[in-house]
Amino acid sequence: VFDLTAEIVDWEIEPGKFVEAWTYNGVVPAPQFILDRGDDIEVRVVNNLPLGTDIHWHGVHTPNDQDGVAPYTQDLIAPNGGTFTYKFTVVDDAIGMYHAHNHAQIQVVNGMFGVFRVGENPIPYGQTISGVTIPDSLDLAVDMPMILNDAGTIGLSLNGKSFPATEPLVLNQGEWASITYYNEGLTSHPMHLHQFPQLVYAKDGIPLDQPYYVDTLNVAPGERYTVLMRADDPGVWVWHCHILNHVERANGMFGMVTAIIVNEDPTFDPAAVPIDPTNWRNTAGEPIDRTLLDGIDGATHNNSDGA
Amino acid sequence: VFDLTAEIVDWEIEPGKFVEAWTYNGVVPAPQFILDRGDDIEVRVVNNLPLGTDIHWHGVHTPNDQDGVAPYTQDLIAPNGGTFTYKFTVVDDAIGMYHAHNHAQIQVVNGMFGVFRVGENPIPYGQTISGVTIPDSLDLAVDMPMILNDAGTIGLSLNGKSFPATEPLVLNQGEWASITYYNEGLTSHPMHLHQFPQLVYAKDGIPLDQPYYVDTLNVAPGERYTVLMRADDPGVWVWHCHILNHVERANGMFGMVTAIIVNEDPTFDPAAVPIDPTNWRNTAGEPIDRTLLDGIDGATHNNSDGA
Amino acid sequence: VFDLTAEIVDWEIEPGKFVEAWTYNGVVPAPQFILDRGDDIEVRVVNNLPLGTDIHWHGVHTPNDQDGVAPYTQDLIAPNGGTFTYKFTVVDDAIGMYHAHNHAQIQVVNGMFGVFRVGENPIPYGQTISGVTIPDSLDLAVDMPMILNDAGTIGLSLNGKSFPATEPLVLNQGEWASITYYNEGLTSHPMHLHQFPQLVYAKDGIPLDQPYYVDTLNVAPGERYTVLMRADDPGVWVWHCHILNHVERANGMFGMVTAIIVNEDPTFDPAAVPIDPTNWRNTAGEPIDRTLLDGIDGATHNNSDGA
Repeated sequence: VFDLTAEIVDWEIEPGKFVEAWTYNGVVPAPQFILDRGDDIEVRVVNNLPLGTDIHWHGVHTPNDQDGVAPYTQDLIAPNGGTFTYKFTVVDDAIGMYHAHNHAQIQVVNGMFGVFRVGENPIPYGQTISGVTIPDSLDLAVDMPMILNDAGTIGLSLNGKSFPATEPLVLNQGEWASITYYNEGLTSHPMHLHQFPQLVYAKDGIPLDQPYYVDTLNVAPGERYTVLMRADDPGVWVWHCHILNHVERANGMFGMVTAIIVNEDPTFDPAAVPIDPTNWRNTAGEPIDRTLLDGIDGATHNNSDGA
Repeated sequence: VFDLTAEIVDWEIEPGKFVEAWTYNGVVPAPQFILDRGDDIEVRVVNNLPLGTDIHWHGVHTPNDQDGVAPYTQDLIAPNGGTFTYKFTVVDDAIGMYHAHNHAQIQVVNGMFGVFRVGENPIPYGQTISGVTIPDSLDLAVDMPMILNDAGTIGLSLNGKSFPATEPLVLNQGEWASITYYNEGLTSHPMHLHQFPQLVYAKDGIPLDQPYYVDTLNVAPGERYTVLMRADDPGVWVWHCHILNHVERANGMFGMVTAIIVNEDPTFDPAAVPIDPTNWRNTAGEPIDRTLLDGIDGATHNNSDGA
Repeated sequence: VFDLTAEIVDWEIEPGKFVEAWTYNGVVPAPQFILDRGDDIEVRVVNNLPLGTDIHWHGVHTPNDQDGVAPYTQDLIAPNGGTFTYKFTVVDDAIGMYHAHNHAQIQVVNGMFGVFRVGENPIPYGQTISGVTIPDSLDLAVDMPMILNDAGTIGLSLNGKSFPATEPLVLNQGEWASITYYNEGLTSHPMHLHQFPQLVYAKDGIPLDQPYYVDTLNVAPGERYTVLMRADDPGVWVWHCHILNHVERANGMFGMVTAIIVNEDPTFDPAAVPIDPTNWRNTAGEPIDRTLLDGIDGATHNNSDGA
């Protein structure tokens, strides 16, 4: 039996700034569940909140009476000490999440959310996408959640923290990372990673037969997208929501910003496994007349040779 | 000739709560057009509103003078009794909609919208998607619109009603349904169906060569997405926008919530036509080190066996 | 060396209506960079603004110290006359943009954004999509940016102008156009083009192996989508954001509206290159019982033959 206690705690959202977070076990995000298919889970919830609650296992197949939708599939777990035990077998792979369903508009955005994973990442090994072949085998240096929020007491945040309290991801040059975005907020967030194309290979945990590359990925509330990237270039590369007032205010950056910090590895040879999908060229058809691009008022044709 | 009368009526948006709806023929959504390619249609509009109007056939190919964009393609249909007759041949299949184009920011969100369908659903019969093969033939138990709105006098609603006035979809275990989302509001809505993966197979009525599965589908204003699902598990499964304050307020659920109610069928054998796309496993590449998932502050590795 | 001067100017956003725009070289959008792979560029920025600035090359591969993220990758370019020179080789194709990164929430939305292109459009020549084959070769009549904004002093606008100051695209019947949407605002915009399906063939400049057709394309802040369309039908076809209050107010249209104006060509034969993806029919599976579409309250089955 795993115990989850729903409780209000003081949470340091930015260095020195505390908010009243609604949590499972005092942390935001909540503890991660990482399981194998076929596992039986038993989760005992103790509700120390002033409001009733329940837990929905979002993106996870469960019997109806474990789906966590009070008052339809169960009774509300009473405030101030009520308990309920969820018990089911995880029958399918999942890249899911769990959170309150009743009073969700208060409880989820205030911090009651966590990751629920079953099975392995469906990485498209050996598949060629936009002209780039993913290796038949690769070692992930990190497989991490990036949980988005924007409301409640937590507010604009990544994994429960607002910049500069957000934790950067540190990689060595040439390392691979898989990242799953989970949106637990009330607004879509277009997540922009500088420099490194993100290969989107699963949506809501279900593998995409046709993965695709992006540099900015729009994630709506309730959605999950899983991406693969390789840290080819050394340096500090910021990684943030591209809604500019979600990441910056008059006195500087805050909120939904973090960075990928890539340490140089002099032995790294990007040509050994070419991964840049922007290395495309049309091989068929006619070349395009570039003067066509000059149609807009105020625009000037310009290149490095002249102008 | 089909008559559409633009008129203001009292509309029961929630049980006992009436709003002033702007309608075609007194209903929200408006009457559906369900046509065959090659049909000639003639629609006589009588405008009993206090403002001018017109009708745009969104996603439908028409001659320019039938496109319904006053004052460019026609004159405004005068308020208080003006009339106009649209007349054209439907030359292409469509999963479209029709609504006011002039004063649209008032008239559409207040209720003047309806479905316009030409031809059959482009279901991807026999195609294998995320490892699951759609049958070569299937009977749809229901083929329904899910029209989203969030503004005007109608406000947050599904097919013109706010929960609990929204009508649940009732299916027997094992039945198939096709659902088309139409967004007639001012905001994107990520539509989350509990338990059953949604196979997205058409965008704006145009078949996708590569359908994909989701559990949460973000639908922006003006967009249509058509999905296929099968009701494998009995129970009451809620179905809602995942922007939490679009579905819940302090005193409980409202707005963009409904449910799929699945009646048990003891003879149903899901293994006969396996449809669960989360039944994937990587068959190539190296297994992933699960300890990688522990990188986030506050997260604890946990599974059912220990912790 | 190309000079970019960051400066505040009076900008005519609508006929006769001036706003204080923050610009590069006095124009909104800023000058376009149109380059070949392998070009060396050198851009000298003079900052005549009252705030510090920097330039991020969004979607463009650069050395870390040219990424334009003060104070991490460089010092802020001082206000009132500070200068900085960016210098790098463009190593990859890109459909990118450039804009301020520091004080971005003020400077970008006030007008400091421009297009940065390297290489040719990855048009899917010869590929069959939704049953329609793109020719092995085609001449683009226009290859244009459509830059979206919604905030700051510029506000709701297309390429720096609000309707009716937006410039329509004029084509002859049968001509092809490629359009790239760039969102430099704070909100997603679902861009609806009347009549002509848009073939989405690149995301953030990276070619999609599986292009798809839409009539409404949702573009989030920071995203770019590149689409191909052919002007098959003569007339004035409006083209606009489908968030209705982004295009209309009480006294008529404004903001994010423009049009494609197609001049008739009596010699144009659409059958020579059939391009309409809605010309699909299911060839497998059972026909659908259309009465299924009648499930919604208030909906009436209706077609041109009866009702």
